[in-house]
Amino acid sequence: MLSRNQIKYIQSLHQKKYRQQHGAFLVEGAKSVQEVFQSDFQIEMLVATEAFYKENTRLTDRQRTPVEIASVADLERIGTLESNNAALAVVRTKENLPLLAGPDEIALILDDIRDPGNLGTILRIADWYGVRKILCSETTADVYNPKVISASKGSFTRVNWWYGDVAQFLSQLGDGVAVYGAFLNGEDVHTLPFGTSGYLVMGNESNGIGPAVEPFVIKRVTIPSYGGAESLNVGIATAVLLDNWRRTGNLT
Amino acid sequence: MLSRNQIKYIQSLHQKKYRQQHGAFLVEGAKSVQEVFQSDFQIEMLVATEAFYKENTRLTDRQRTPVEIASVADLERIGTLESNNAALAVVRTKENLPLLAGPDEIALILDDIRDPGNLGTILRIADWYGVRKILCSETTADVYNPKVISASKGSFTRVNWWYGDVAQFLSQLGDGVAVYGAFLNGEDVHTLPFGTSGYLVMGNESNGIGPAVEPFVIKRVTIPSYGGAESLNVGIATAVLLDNWRRTGNLT
Repeated sequence: MLSRNQIKYIQSLHQKKYRQQHGAFLVEGAKSVQEVFQSDFQIEMLVATEAFYKENTRLTDRQRTPVEIASVADLERIGTLESNNAALAVVRTKENLPLLAGPDEIALILDDIRDPGNLGTILRIADWYGVRKILCSETTADVYNPKVISASKGSFTRVNWWYGDVAQFLSQLGDGVAVYGAFLNGEDVHTLPFGTSGYLVMGNESNGIGPAVEPFVIKRVTIPSYGGAESLNVGIATAVLLDNWRRTGNLT
Repeated sequence: MLSRNQIKYIQSLHQKKYRQQHGAFLVEGAKSVQEVFQSDFQIEMLVATEAFYKENTRLTDRQRTPVEIASVADLERIGTLESNNAALAVVRTKENLPLLAGPDEIALILDDIRDPGNLGTILRIADWYGVRKILCSETTADVYNPKVISASKGSFTRVNWWYGDVAQFLSQLGDGVAVYGAFLNGEDVHTLPFGTSGYLVMGNESNGIGPAVEPFVIKRVTIPSYGGAESLNVGIATAVLLDNWRRTGNLT
């Protein structure tokens, strides 16, 4: 049974302040918990229903993780999901290490993406398109927010991220590095020849790429519109741009 | 001031049953209300803050719509949005008329899309890509659900829809009509030559296209994956498929 202190600790991780203080975050629901046990994340504690634990013992015991058996009601009380009939894991956050796009690699730069749901969706999209590195501005939503983790559908285990001053990062790149940025008035991505490596910058939900980052964008790109909608959601736009990038890469 | 009966009537429209009974639905927030006043929808009543009404009188008075001035607190109490400092309109639903894709036209078919947020996003994406007709299975979320209207960001005014038996609809199409469907094991959309007209079927969030509709799909299409994510959200997939369709159409 969970102690009062354990409950308090787990509930504190709903908040960014305590996630940073303790260096830990929550992973909730059957699929996400299974994925995190198959990843290189270090797991502090597993809280699971008896049924989930029995079905997944082989997976969860590999890391010799301390396990607490709990009811569905307990899981929902200590966690953030409306319904969770499986498990919750307390997982160690990773070190904030700088990331550079390698040759033949695409990395994403997120400039002030505020909505956790959008960020989670972008992790999932990045994972689908084989993007392994995401550089986030300090103002971008916290990737360890339970909503981000949940929306990523397990993809948080296969994508790496770094938080920092993305304008400064971009200012230190060499001249030959391709930096694409999503704008409403750029080149048509259906005809633009994307290179095979570099960075794609996506901006804030309302205001797009900010003035500090904009000067470092070498190529402004736009998804052509055929109708009346003023814009696309930033997750949707990220997917369409990465799809065009991959599609062009395929053709060369 | 709103009467008790008006409040009761407006609040009843949160529910599908009463929207169907009264043939009316709610449009909330500044942008959506402005868009609906510029559309061919018939508007029963406008409830607005004094500031919104003053700024938009020219727009709202064209239809000679009855107007009630209300406070922000009132708007939030009668509507569904957490915050609404502008307006709410009660709008007449449209007749459920059958839709056929014309020559050089793409129409969407939604087979059991359950989530209102996804449906709203799909309306916005359809609008972006110039898709004007959406055929929905009876089990697809109600397009008049306030969450759908809100997520569509005004695009509900530029897209038409029909609800009915989509399998039966498809069974009555001629032999030469292109019916594409999104599956996880179809042809790669990066190399597939899309035609310039026809239907694109998108299936349920968890189970994809159902067994009643599947036999009528002539070409199974798939977005190629380059990473570890098992799937893409149905809204994201719709955008990427329509983008590929438009891109191919551009090239021919």
